[in-house]
Amino acid sequence: MRIDVLTLFPEMFEGVFGASILGKAREKGIVSLNAVNFRDYANNKHNTVDDYPYGGGGGMVLKPEPLFAAVEDLVPEGGAKPRVVLLCPQGEPYTQRKAEELSASEHLVFVCGHYEGYDERIRQHLVTDEISVGDYVLTGGELPAMVVIDSIVRLLPGALGNENSAVTDSFSTGLLEHPHYTRPAVFRGWEVPEVLTSGHHANVETWRRQQSILRTLERRPELLETAELSKKERLWLAERIKERELQAQSASDAEK
Amino acid sequence: MRIDVLTLFPEMFEGVFGASILGKAREKGIVSLNAVNFRDYANNKHNTVDDYPYGGGGGMVLKPEPLFAAVEDLVPEGGAKPRVVLLCPQGEPYTQRKAEELSASEHLVFVCGHYEGYDERIRQHLVTDEISVGDYVLTGGELPAMVVIDSIVRLLPGALGNENSAVTDSFSTGLLEHPHYTRPAVFRGWEVPEVLTSGHHANVETWRRQQSILRTLERRPELLETAELSKKERLWLAERIKERELQAQSASDAEK
Repeated sequence: MRIDVLTLFPEMFEGVFGASILGKAREKGIVSLNAVNFRDYANNKHNTVDDYPYGGGGGMVLKPEPLFAAVEDLVPEGGAKPRVVLLCPQGEPYTQRKAEELSASEHLVFVCGHYEGYDERIRQHLVTDEISVGDYVLTGGELPAMVVIDSIVRLLPGALGNENSAVTDSFSTGLLEHPHYTRPAVFRGWEVPEVLTSGHHANVETWRRQQSILRTLERRPELLETAELSKKERLWLAERIKERELQAQSASDAEK
Repeated sequence: MRIDVLTLFPEMFEGVFGASILGKAREKGIVSLNAVNFRDYANNKHNTVDDYPYGGGGGMVLKPEPLFAAVEDLVPEGGAKPRVVLLCPQGEPYTQRKAEELSASEHLVFVCGHYEGYDERIRQHLVTDEISVGDYVLTGGELPAMVVIDSIVRLLPGALGNENSAVTDSFSTGLLEHPHYTRPAVFRGWEVPEVLTSGHHANVETWRRQQSILRTLERRPELLETAELSKKERLWLAERIKERELQAQSASDAEK
């Protein structure tokens, strides 16, 4: 896979593209990662990439010419049109499903704005996907691009060693992960749950599933609607919910 | 504000902490940003920070000692306990409200795992906040930590120049941003909407609000429930929704 990033801050990507899974995938030749300063495509005497908005108002707007010129320059002679991904708060909320979809592409171009808005013609005629990584305000598209690129590259065949399998598995059940414990068995007086040191494999499995379900119930109950639970687990969960309601009820009675 | 990041990949942060708003805020003395390798706190002969999980299974688990030692070392003699933020898929979904809350802290410590799980005692007794930046799988907590740090630092007084005011404003209305246009007025045959070059300020404002509302309706309709709309805008929106339903109905009739 080939990934190009169009940004005014290519130096932000150096440390990230060189380290960990991205660095290794690059070394193995699984992906090429390339940060391009689109100011190089400004083609006017002041190297201007933005301008005042039509209709007035604060802020600057990224001009269409440099970004169109940059994307066109990045497509090899006779090459297929790449997916062009714009990172912006107006984009579709990013999901693991979208990561899987994008990981099937041969060539991705990421467009990162910074403070500025984008001329609408960039969205309409150049960009194929608009992505938002979450409902919070960031300074530019660079960090979201890194997030999306990491999530995609780790899905490419050969990018991950076996050490990562556990993390991926835990997500695929649709539940939050169960608690983990490692040595020491007692740390500052806090002990590892007995079941984990019992050597009873089936009990460990049951405990982990139940802890996953409970954690999901506490933190992200909406995920339980689509999680893969057995009939027995659904019954167990219904009992836990009922138990909690009774506890809440008796706590509220005690207050009266 | 002081921000420390505990990570096994401090080199990932160099480019990001030096550039743009984070770099400037650092230069101005508004924030100190410090990436610390917690392997330096391993305190065992092989510098081991992780170990096999109790109860078996794949993956490794971060041991409690190095992270407790690192956090304790980072708190100045007699200093207040910092907020300790763990980045993980099991955390609370990150929002702008949480960014505002964290921006009021004097000292934040971010804990970034990488492939591994965390020993549960880290969550229970060291960490004060668990944050997830979104429902997608990433290789480590480093990129999410950068995202959260960027969103916080830009809220600190003096961190932003005026050039950014527009972006922030657009979010505070609870609507997605309206389209922007800049020169040239015609690019490859695609024209700027006439209203924006009309010089009629009130019409420009109305068009922008309506475009914001329409874009939110198309892309993130759930945001409209809490968006700040005038009574007139609510009525206008209701008409647009009805119009669309009629169009969808007649398209479906035409197919029959």
